[in-house]
Amino acid sequence: MRKISLFIAMSLDGYIAKPNDDLSFLKLVEKEGEDYGYSEFTNTIDTIIIGRRTYDYVLKEIGPSHYDNGHRDIYVITRTKKSQVGRTIFYTGNITELVKRLKSEKGKNIYCDGGAEVINELLKHGLIDELIISVIPVLLGYGTRLFKDGRPEQLFEFVTAKTFDTGLVQLHYKQKIKNEQDHI
Amino acid sequence: MRKISLFIAMSLDGYIAKPNDDLSFLKLVEKEGEDYGYSEFTNTIDTIIIGRRTYDYVLKEIGPSHYDNGHRDIYVITRTKKSQVGRTIFYTGNITELVKRLKSEKGKNIYCDGGAEVINELLKHGLIDELIISVIPVLLGYGTRLFKDGRPEQLFEFVTAKTFDTGLVQLHYKQKIKNEQDHI
Repeated sequence: MRKISLFIAMSLDGYIAKPNDDLSFLKLVEKEGEDYGYSEFTNTIDTIIIGRRTYDYVLKEIGPSHYDNGHRDIYVITRTKKSQVGRTIFYTGNITELVKRLKSEKGKNIYCDGGAEVINELLKHGLIDELIISVIPVLLGYGTRLFKDGRPEQLFEFVTAKTFDTGLVQLHYKQKIKNEQDHI
Repeated sequence: MRKISLFIAMSLDGYIAKPNDDLSFLKLVEKEGEDYGYSEFTNTIDTIIIGRRTYDYVLKEIGPSHYDNGHRDIYVITRTKKSQVGRTIFYTGNITELVKRLKSEKGKNIYCDGGAEVINELLKHGLIDELIISVIPVLLGYGTRLFKDGRPEQLFEFVTAKTFDTGLVQLHYKQKIKNEQDHI
């Protein structure tokens, strides 16, 4: 079955951005020719789920290349109805139903590209199968947290920890299957 | 100079305890004969700084063996004056001044053993030199966070990531020296 993955960078103290969408801490680990496995990861997916604010931010700051110039299905989670543009769908329905439908369909994997609200909504319902978290060696002190308070406890299985000479550590976990969860 | 280290376990989502001091998530990685480097670490220290609530909790749950049965200097950070008991000092003064004094004295390293309030007070003043964080493969969903909001940004240097077959990943960082901090 298709899985839903996070692939995201956070500071050692758990923030994915400083206030005002400030991502400048990512510059600490920028290195010519090093994408920390991002291309390899995106080759395994054909669908992106993303919050509306993050979608707008990415379009403005990076441009449509981030979405493979329209060659992927993009579900933008929003409260404002808007017509589909190419393969970009502005989705105002129930996110759990969306994920269940997508998972039942054939296709490559699904990438939840943020922001924190959409991620936490999926986590609340146990819908994230795989976490790939790049830990940046800095304490930011405040900002937007990757993990918000108020989710159910959920076991994960450790897969790998990759280290890089920039000091980035990439932690990879997959969700434990449900009957294992029942035994904790 | 003596350094101050954290040696602490947190869930993947950044909690060091669930509500009501519930540490049962640590059982997920308990393994006969495996202490994840704790004895080796405590051999390098002769002084502990600990918050009063955590001190009481440890005495009750583990007993004085955790403090090497009185063979280490223990500074219990508290608001309530109380007489020294052996090498255990109930400290009501300024924590920054305590750390500066201890660092200027001769001795082995200093272990900040929690809780989150004392840790964050030290982090606020850039007084933690080394972070050894054991990441437990579970999302707890809520509880006491290791890192509270409202600290200054602080660069760390990645040292090692040790992985264990229980799924625990131990991340080790040291603080970047001040003149490197000035250049970010």
